[in-house]
Amino acid sequence: MIVGIVGGGQLARMLALAGQPLNFEFLILDPAPDASAAPLGTHMCGNYNDQALLADFAKRADVVTYEFENVPLESIKYLSEHATVHPSHHTLAIARDRMREKTMFRELGIPTPPFAEVNSRTDLENAVTEIGLPAILKTRTLGYDGKGQAILRSLGDLDIAWKQLGSMPLILEGFIPFNREISVIAIRGLQGETKFYPVSENIHRDGVLLLSTSCPDDPMQQHAQDYAKRLLDSLNCVGVLALELFQVGETLLANEMAPRVHNSGHWTIEGAETSQFENHLRAILGLPLGATTPVGYAAMVNFIGTIPKSEQVLALPGAHLHNYGKEERPGRKLGHATLRAQNEQVLLEGIDRLLTLAQPETET
Amino acid sequence: MIVGIVGGGQLARMLALAGQPLNFEFLILDPAPDASAAPLGTHMCGNYNDQALLADFAKRADVVTYEFENVPLESIKYLSEHATVHPSHHTLAIARDRMREKTMFRELGIPTPPFAEVNSRTDLENAVTEIGLPAILKTRTLGYDGKGQAILRSLGDLDIAWKQLGSMPLILEGFIPFNREISVIAIRGLQGETKFYPVSENIHRDGVLLLSTSCPDDPMQQHAQDYAKRLLDSLNCVGVLALELFQVGETLLANEMAPRVHNSGHWTIEGAETSQFENHLRAILGLPLGATTPVGYAAMVNFIGTIPKSEQVLALPGAHLHNYGKEERPGRKLGHATLRAQNEQVLLEGIDRLLTLAQPETET
Repeated sequence: MIVGIVGGGQLARMLALAGQPLNFEFLILDPAPDASAAPLGTHMCGNYNDQALLADFAKRADVVTYEFENVPLESIKYLSEHATVHPSHHTLAIARDRMREKTMFRELGIPTPPFAEVNSRTDLENAVTEIGLPAILKTRTLGYDGKGQAILRSLGDLDIAWKQLGSMPLILEGFIPFNREISVIAIRGLQGETKFYPVSENIHRDGVLLLSTSCPDDPMQQHAQDYAKRLLDSLNCVGVLALELFQVGETLLANEMAPRVHNSGHWTIEGAETSQFENHLRAILGLPLGATTPVGYAAMVNFIGTIPKSEQVLALPGAHLHNYGKEERPGRKLGHATLRAQNEQVLLEGIDRLLTLAQPETET
Repeated sequence: MIVGIVGGGQLARMLALAGQPLNFEFLILDPAPDASAAPLGTHMCGNYNDQALLADFAKRADVVTYEFENVPLESIKYLSEHATVHPSHHTLAIARDRMREKTMFRELGIPTPPFAEVNSRTDLENAVTEIGLPAILKTRTLGYDGKGQAILRSLGDLDIAWKQLGSMPLILEGFIPFNREISVIAIRGLQGETKFYPVSENIHRDGVLLLSTSCPDDPMQQHAQDYAKRLLDSLNCVGVLALELFQVGETLLANEMAPRVHNSGHWTIEGAETSQFENHLRAILGLPLGATTPVGYAAMVNFIGTIPKSEQVLALPGAHLHNYGKEERPGRKLGHATLRAQNEQVLLEGIDRLLTLAQPETET
């Protein structure tokens, strides 16, 4: 079977690594000549909206998937006319648009932080009056890792935020002080069967995920899972869907969803019976889904902007290094390490050591 | 780092898959255009004794290793003059020659079945008198998976065996009725540090490994490990070394060793903290060795000559499929599946189901 992946970053790379033992081949569509996933498949190097390239890609792939939401929607629609694409372009259209996404959450009875559509300066003022401050103004599409966002703390921030973002369709979201952020990685197969990993507890730094810790037997598991299942079923989604949630007291508020393998699920490579990557492939190819049961206690630390020496990471007991082979650049996700431990105490000690490696002391 | 592997079969393939997350690149030297490992690295397609190719290979690789013992020794010697090669050609020279190998076992105080060198028909008769029947006549080199062997049950078998094998240097080995066959996968790092996986219990069919079961806390663990350590240290070996042993009562008799990753260690991909493949790479690159502690209960079943449908294997809870992407051919190792379970009972039930898939009923 030949799997076509739109996007050739680390998510595509880990999908390809998960699929090689199952004897799948990969077509990687990515404009970057040095795309991280390129060495693990046939690299079709070109723009995402190059129709001749898309036609060839669709023809050669048995099934098409994508590794990120910001691929042009028109391209995925075009591919859907010429190949089997999972998750569908309908799912993508919703997931890539914060307004449609949050509206769907609301329609399915999934609580969210307060939000309002902002298409004009007047909309913004009305939204601020309705939602209150602090709030976050975000582009409806194309944002990731905290990009395309402005925090509004006082009315004085509106001008700068509007200047920065006002040319795009926007959404204003209430700023919710939460106890913690969790995410659940869910999978739905071709026959509609679903599976869920233990939720991850996530910690960000400068808007980028730094640490995800797997939480087996978490009290919010069933709650998070129920919301994810509503989304999967309502979208008729095939593949992995990640749902990020804020926990406020005993309430979960949906922040966003991603119809793809997700950074907060990287720990599943070592920390679950079947990884999110293998399960995404199993789902889109109509194969039986693999068990999502945890294997030991696991956590993942991202290496952002800089990556420690391999020998430093590998010297940590239970550490598993994933270096994406990307050039160092500030703010760029270059790799991650998963820690797997027999108990929680050992895991926590390991996380401390790994965080020290991930965040070298900066000169002041 | 660029790792050169001589031989591009499934062992090279799994080495490359283990090395990709560590951001190693691979050069695969193999004469077969469709070598199993070729898609995971740069394939240098040509004969193992093509000196121009070897020179180029040595120049491009930061470290060289090999995936089987039957590569021409002269080629490994040549590579050693132009590159860093682990394990050394000295180790290879001993391990690929049953006579030198068994002599080394004896010198290190590691018991073996009785054996004698056979270079002539007279030698063969003397050896049979000394060792008794039944016995096995084997070529000293180039044998694998039961090839290059003849069982002598009575004196009447000598003529046929001699006709078949007499043109090569031979060894006669006593046929030992054993309780079970076990193997231990051992690793030695650049600084001489050693690690050992839990022993595997191995079952063959028609001379080819069919089933390996990991045995955590096996009563023979320390015993097997001591022998492997003597060999590793004496050979000054860097990398993985597998030692196969027959257990007779409380005694272990060394059958053979292989200075490479080994089929009886494939279960370590899912069933150990660090796989034999990653640890071999860590060793030859001078990186810290990874923990060899078991993760759950694990066993591996080989798919020989035919491979079940993916969906049949993936439907088994805890089953992990490794399809080498090779064409079906009688007797050929086409793939394997590892089973990982929370307890021994579940493992045993899974093995039964997997063996049924691996050995479809043949028409009679």
